Amino acid sequence: MADIGKILVLHGPNLNLLGLREPQHYGSNTLASINQQLIDLGASHKVSVETFQSNREYEIIERIHAALQDGTDYIVINPAAFTHTSVAIRDALAGVKVPFIEVHLSNVHARETFRHHSYFSDLAIGVICGLGAKGYAYALEFVIDRLKSAK
Amino acid sequence: MADIGKILVLHGPNLNLLGLREPQHYGSNTLASINQQLIDLGASHKVSVETFQSNREYEIIERIHAALQDGTDYIVINPAAFTHTSVAIRDALAGVKVPFIEVHLSNVHARETFRHHSYFSDLAIGVICGLGAKGYAYALEFVIDRLKSAK
Amino acid sequence: MADIGKILVLHGPNLNLLGLREPQHYGSNTLASINQQLIDLGASHKVSVETFQSNREYEIIERIHAALQDGTDYIVINPAAFTHTSVAIRDALAGVKVPFIEVHLSNVHARETFRHHSYFSDLAIGVICGLGAKGYAYALEFVIDRLKSAK
Amino acid sequence: MADIGKILVLHGPNLNLLGLREPQHYGSNTLASINQQLIDLGASHKVSVETFQSNREYEIIERIHAALQDGTDYIVINPAAFTHTSVAIRDALAGVKVPFIEVHLSNVHARETFRHHSYFSDLAIGVICGLGAKGYAYALEFVIDRLKSAK
Amino acid sequence: MADIGKILVLHGPNLNLLGLREPQHYGSNTLASINQQLIDLGASHKVSVETFQSNREYEIIERIHAALQDGTDYIVINPAAFTHTSVAIRDALAGVKVPFIEVHLSNVHARETFRHHSYFSDLAIGVICGLGAKGYAYALEFVIDRLKSAK
Amino acid sequence: MADIGKILVLHGPNLNLLGLREPQHYGSNTLASINQQLIDLGASHKVSVETFQSNREYEIIERIHAALQDGTDYIVINPAAFTHTSVAIRDALAGVKVPFIEVHLSNVHARETFRHHSYFSDLAIGVICGLGAKGYAYALEFVIDRLKSAK
Amino acid sequence: MADIGKILVLHGPNLNLLGLREPQHYGSNTLASINQQLIDLGASHKVSVETFQSNREYEIIERIHAALQDGTDYIVINPAAFTHTSVAIRDALAGVKVPFIEVHLSNVHARETFRHHSYFSDLAIGVICGLGAKGYAYALEFVIDRLKSAK
Amino acid sequence: MADIGKILVLHGPNLNLLGLREPQHYGSNTLASINQQLIDLGASHKVSVETFQSNREYEIIERIHAALQDGTDYIVINPAAFTHTSVAIRDALAGVKVPFIEVHLSNVHARETFRHHSYFSDLAIGVICGLGAKGYAYALEFVIDRLKSAK
Amino acid sequence: MADIGKILVLHGPNLNLLGLREPQHYGSNTLASINQQLIDLGASHKVSVETFQSNREYEIIERIHAALQDGTDYIVINPAAFTHTSVAIRDALAGVKVPFIEVHLSNVHARETFRHHSYFSDLAIGVICGLGAKGYAYALEFVIDRLKSAK
Amino acid sequence: MADIGKILVLHGPNLNLLGLREPQHYGSNTLASINQQLIDLGASHKVSVETFQSNREYEIIERIHAALQDGTDYIVINPAAFTHTSVAIRDALAGVKVPFIEVHLSNVHARETFRHHSYFSDLAIGVICGLGAKGYAYALEFVIDRLKSAK
Amino acid sequence: MADIGKILVLHGPNLNLLGLREPQHYGSNTLASINQQLIDLGASHKVSVETFQSNREYEIIERIHAALQDGTDYIVINPAAFTHTSVAIRDALAGVKVPFIEVHLSNVHARETFRHHSYFSDLAIGVICGLGAKGYAYALEFVIDRLKSAK
Amino acid sequence: MADIGKILVLHGPNLNLLGLREPQHYGSNTLASINQQLIDLGASHKVSVETFQSNREYEIIERIHAALQDGTDYIVINPAAFTHTSVAIRDALAGVKVPFIEVHLSNVHARETFRHHSYFSDLAIGVICGLGAKGYAYALEFVIDRLKSAK
Repeated sequence: MADIGKILVLHGPNLNLLGLREPQHYGSNTLASINQQLIDLGASHKVSVETFQSNREYEIIERIHAALQDGTDYIVINPAAFTHTSVAIRDALAGVKVPFIEVHLSNVHARETFRHHSYFSDLAIGVICGLGAKGYAYALEFVIDRLKSAK
Repeated sequence: MADIGKILVLHGPNLNLLGLREPQHYGSNTLASINQQLIDLGASHKVSVETFQSNREYEIIERIHAALQDGTDYIVINPAAFTHTSVAIRDALAGVKVPFIEVHLSNVHARETFRHHSYFSDLAIGVICGLGAKGYAYALEFVIDRLKSAK
Repeated sequence: MADIGKILVLHGPNLNLLGLREPQHYGSNTLASINQQLIDLGASHKVSVETFQSNREYEIIERIHAALQDGTDYIVINPAAFTHTSVAIRDALAGVKVPFIEVHLSNVHARETFRHHSYFSDLAIGVICGLGAKGYAYALEFVIDRLKSAK
Repeated sequence: MADIGKILVLHGPNLNLLGLREPQHYGSNTLASINQQLIDLGASHKVSVETFQSNREYEIIERIHAALQDGTDYIVINPAAFTHTSVAIRDALAGVKVPFIEVHLSNVHARETFRHHSYFSDLAIGVICGLGAKGYAYALEFVIDRLKSAK
Repeated sequence: MADIGKILVLHGPNLNLLGLREPQHYGSNTLASINQQLIDLGASHKVSVETFQSNREYEIIERIHAALQDGTDYIVINPAAFTHTSVAIRDALAGVKVPFIEVHLSNVHARETFRHHSYFSDLAIGVICGLGAKGYAYALEFVIDRLKSAK
Repeated sequence: MADIGKILVLHGPNLNLLGLREPQHYGSNTLASINQQLIDLGASHKVSVETFQSNREYEIIERIHAALQDGTDYIVINPAAFTHTSVAIRDALAGVKVPFIEVHLSNVHARETFRHHSYFSDLAIGVICGLGAKGYAYALEFVIDRLKSAK
Repeated sequence: MADIGKILVLHGPNLNLLGLREPQHYGSNTLASINQQLIDLGASHKVSVETFQSNREYEIIERIHAALQDGTDYIVINPAAFTHTSVAIRDALAGVKVPFIEVHLSNVHARETFRHHSYFSDLAIGVICGLGAKGYAYALEFVIDRLKSAK
Repeated sequence: MADIGKILVLHGPNLNLLGLREPQHYGSNTLASINQQLIDLGASHKVSVETFQSNREYEIIERIHAALQDGTDYIVINPAAFTHTSVAIRDALAGVKVPFIEVHLSNVHARETFRHHSYFSDLAIGVICGLGAKGYAYALEFVIDRLKSAK
Repeated sequence: MADIGKILVLHGPNLNLLGLREPQHYGSNTLASINQQLIDLGASHKVSVETFQSNREYEIIERIHAALQDGTDYIVINPAAFTHTSVAIRDALAGVKVPFIEVHLSNVHARETFRHHSYFSDLAIGVICGLGAKGYAYALEFVIDRLKSAK
Repeated sequence: MADIGKILVLHGPNLNLLGLREPQHYGSNTLASINQQLIDLGASHKVSVETFQSNREYEIIERIHAALQDGTDYIVINPAAFTHTSVAIRDALAGVKVPFIEVHLSNVHARETFRHHSYFSDLAIGVICGLGAKGYAYALEFVIDRLKSAK
Repeated sequence: MADIGKILVLHGPNLNLLGLREPQHYGSNTLASINQQLIDLGASHKVSVETFQSNREYEIIERIHAALQDGTDYIVINPAAFTHTSVAIRDALAGVKVPFIEVHLSNVHARETFRHHSYFSDLAIGVICGLGAKGYAYALEFVIDRLKSAK
Repeated sequence: MADIGKILVLHGPNLNLLGLREPQHYGSNTLASINQQLIDLGASHKVSVETFQSNREYEIIERIHAALQDGTDYIVINPAAFTHTSVAIRDALAGVKVPFIEVHLSNVHARETFRHHSYFSDLAIGVICGLGAKGYAYALEFVIDRLKSAK
């Protein structure tokens, strides 16, 4: 059974703590269970979903570079703390030119001022924040729809 | 058949032009068809969805005030241009204390600088932008889920 | 019995919610009871007091314009959210040249930063904030005193 | 006799006070007489000129929307106080894509700092300020010339 | 006859010049006569009013410290020039935790920009400015009312 | 035949390139033909019009100084790049006290941010921008009207 | 022998250290010797010169207040550190309305950024900085000249 | 027994309230007990420690001046509110050139924004904040170590 | 012998150069000798001290994550260059909720402006800077005291 | 008779208008008479004074360059409008390294905000403003004194 | 022997002082020797190199205008002080549309803040700074390469 | 044959994409070919050139640290995205004190505003941007010249 597309879901630093860390901001889901839900959602649409978390900026950069070769159609990225500091990941996304959606679990607009600026939003298709793990699912649904309508 | 909840969808100024105006930003859907889809989506979950568009700040304020009496559980609002200028609608939302999600059809972060500030985001549950009319649908799904899990 | 003067009390948007909305900021008095107290206070000094609330910027503008013809001596205005956004009401007040006092129920200086700027204060006789409904009464007393001493 | 074009002249809030209000800024002409001069000027060139004043942001927005259907070729707008605050009117003008000229009776650069920013100027063909009612006439002449040379 | 409370009225630097200095801003009342009116007003409500003026920041600080011991219920303070410069008086007020109202004789919003910021307003119950010596009286009435309703 | 007045039209640096340089901003008229039209327009009203272009700040300053002696009634000036940088020309205009109108061929508000500030606008009678060479003509008409009504 | 006028020379905090403190900024003159030179200079013109140094803001304020009664014609003030922080001394000078010249021993423009702002300069007749103790002498000469020409 | 050095510990305004005032920021130690601990600590190292608190800026300035004569080797200073406002104390420290350490009981970085700037830190050897009264002890230990190693 | 607690000392990038690099800022101690002193200090109080230096942001993040499991009671961190740029390490510290003290060897307030902002200070218990390697020791003593008093 | 030194007095643009232009700022002295007084003052001290006014930035630059060869000891410069705009004259002064004093006839601190910044002051020996033509004389006296004491 | 292209090298104000002025910034080469090296370098590639220095903004503007007619292929410009102040030269370069490289002898980023902004860099092909006279040579080599590869 | 020196060329993140990524900014050269050209250029001057690219901030830091031991004379660095974010690499360069030149392939001044600030430029010998891969070659030539002239 051939997939109709390939989506990469990227999680930035500290998201491995999910379920432990600041539940008032991030909910009590673990990253593993979120990832499984996203993979299942993709599978139900014959879309391949790969997930990747890293606390290392370079691993995220290099995973994005790899997307140049591996046929990734869309990226869903929660850059977490790197949202506000990583021009290098921004440049990687701009370099490989894979369209992406930016997701934040918490509502960044209701937190510290420095979280109101993102190095990603102006390049993204769109941004979802504050909807917890559902934000990933909606982003995934959106790009799956695009994949289907592009068929 | 009893509804399990009531959701108000508010559209700000100029959204009546939808389908005509700046399609590169807003797509070619009309507001009527978007509204119908949202009502249908609600209906499929036994949730009552009411939609309301106005170019008049006061009508939006007063529609929000009415939510105090009519049992509205959640509001999904695209304040459009009022996003950046209306403290009065912000105060109305804060006054009635109905939780809300902020939606923008276009990616405001990729447009003029003055669109990067919202008087709503810090009070919202969350924000979705750049995903066109789907943004409303995801916001609706999110609050329907909350309604269901609150049962 | 001839009045010794005429005072217009203007209330901006969302103040119709008074008694319901954010009582930690605004107290639990209703607008109707506040207005009655102000009218009574005026009457006890043979001063005619008219009150007007609107969520509509244009109604406030046009009520101010009407003051040009109806012999209003002073205006007491709580512009509420319009304090921070309405150049048009400012221009109306500057246009009719009726002297006015600005009143806020809550202490705006202890709230969000955007509430620290007013489009009215530099044109006002003075400003009272944070004293709840008493702020209106003091403003009224002040202008009644001026009316009396101008006799 | 067929008109060679149709021009809409829009006046923002408080301009109905013209002749009364702050004559050091705005001169002593009434709006009715200004409008008549503009209509006459248009007529002398076989151009239909319609004028509209409102203190209501939504009426201006909706009058601009109507221009989508009624064959308006150009708009001459004095947004008055809305110059500095109305993203919604800006969006209406951008939405209908009718080219427009911005006019101010007074020299806004010689007044309060907040009058130095306009939400309209960057979208306008051009801006005229400080020339009193003549500013409208020059704007009208300019777009009449364009209409003629487009014949 | 037992007092129902004790109020301290503090006047900042240069207010001893009252009646001499810049009458267009401050009126022609002397400080002594203002103080007498305030004491009389208090007396008429069985409230003890003490007044204190100083050009010395430390005397104001130490007078506030003394309020810790002497049963002061409320402070009414016109910090004058110290409004804009004295973190030390702010800290004294925060330290003794006596609630206070900030009063200015002139309308600070209509004067130099540096007068628009106060180190006191965000901690105050409320602020009155521009109403001349009446501002003190209103502040006093307000706290007397609180004292009475707390009985 | 005696003139009824004398107007000086000043063109700043690079305007000698007109017709060559950036036609999307400035149109394809040459400066000579614009000047001739302005002189003719003046002549038709018995008003003497002198034009002067220079790339040299000092020549513009000294031409303005000369206006002290030569009976110039009004100046129409397009300071071009000097708009944003020349306090010296501003001071020359303020020094000779000849009233002036500022004209820009292009709409400066739609260009680089540094073009949004002018050292001239607050001293000018008014400003016209974005209307190409017609801007000069309207400015001329305006001051000719003033000259006539001053007769 | 009657004096032709009376001048008060005020020295702000730390100037008692003169000759000891940071000689690269302030030279090695002591304050006593500077004061004697100024008194002698005054005497040679039949002008009474009084000098006063204090590290206490209130003493400077109260010395300025005293000038209301003692016939001081001019003040020469080096507010030292208070230049950048004392609104209270500014208000004292504005209150007594004695014209003054501001003097700084060192060139404040070549030191820390916070020394570039003065609360005094906009109210002063003029400012002299960087000329060491001679700055006082020039200021004195200037006001002596004014005194003489006012005779 | 000869001391190996002399250290002055300075406490700024409101620190006399210690133990009473805002214990969540400052702890419940009194100033007297803190001072005694510091003197004892010094004594145990044969270092003379003198402590001084004042709410008066001038007393702190003059105490610092006195250090020029009395052989003070180091100053440990908690300028409290004066941290953010006193250029005069800064200048006193720069003038006498006694090296100093800046101490704050509370973590100023976690409080109001205006507490993030200090007029002292760039001149200090170092800064300790948020460690309560221990901050003084560590500062003392540090300079005692320096005294010893300088022997 | 059971420890009474466990403290993690973290050193950020370039601190491995200690003793070589910019000795005027950092002294000539090597990191190994500093670490040994800290471990010895801990040992003398029966407190386990672990030290860790890395030039890699992710290693510091992951070392902090590990503190969730390994019973670390307190962290002492010198984030070095990451102080000013790493939201990710901030988030790691906030995530694991281990209380920490921020230490800088040099006085950051006396260096480049960009060193005046820290992403850590507002979350820290306190901050020590400019005291060289002693800053670590004081921070350690402080948390050891807390450990002891918590027993 | 040998001069003991040589001083160049430079006057910037528009100062040739002196006596005509804005007398409320600049007084009614002509530049010629001011220059003569300065030359006479120099002569009385056996110091050669040369004066030069230009509206041309390059002439001032090149006159400063010439000072490299002609033995100029000091420059007294009133850069007028160039104060706020000419980096080139600043660089010329820095290039030739002739020490200079900056003079302004009017008190620039009491005028438009853009006049509060000077490209010269931080390089100058000192600055005198607001003392009219006397400012030049004092500057001259100051450098003559330096010349004499350097003998 | 036909040239393969023509390059204009422009030097801004004060560069005639080269070799004399601030050698720590600019080296000890004279402008004449630099120019000769550039001409020789051009000649060795059969490229005509013309050099031009001026302290006069208008001469640089007019030299750039002349490039419209004389077949200049590229400009290498060191605008010196005009870098930070001349919109007029920027406009000249934009007007003639000859591509250019911006060169600075010194590293402007290591000097005063006002030197960090250039009116030229965003329009340039590229910028070289801090490499002394070699910067010109590299710029020349770059455009010679372009000329050759365009053959 | 002994080298006359050793140069390290460092390439920051995403530069491994060269030839693929955004060719309008970076050209179509691959990094390998650029590196080979630089090595060859060095070899032709008997200078050893080592090149190193990394997407990992720490690898660049540690490669710079290694330069302390391996006799590197100069560094040529294109920090790419790290230009704007890495204080840690800045500190590494400052720590090892190897002089360096900063190179950018694209003209950063013509791109996003955040690219206008560099953490490196003020420490660099000089900066080259916008000249593509030639920028590296020129930087190399420059330091080779320095190596030669230091012989």
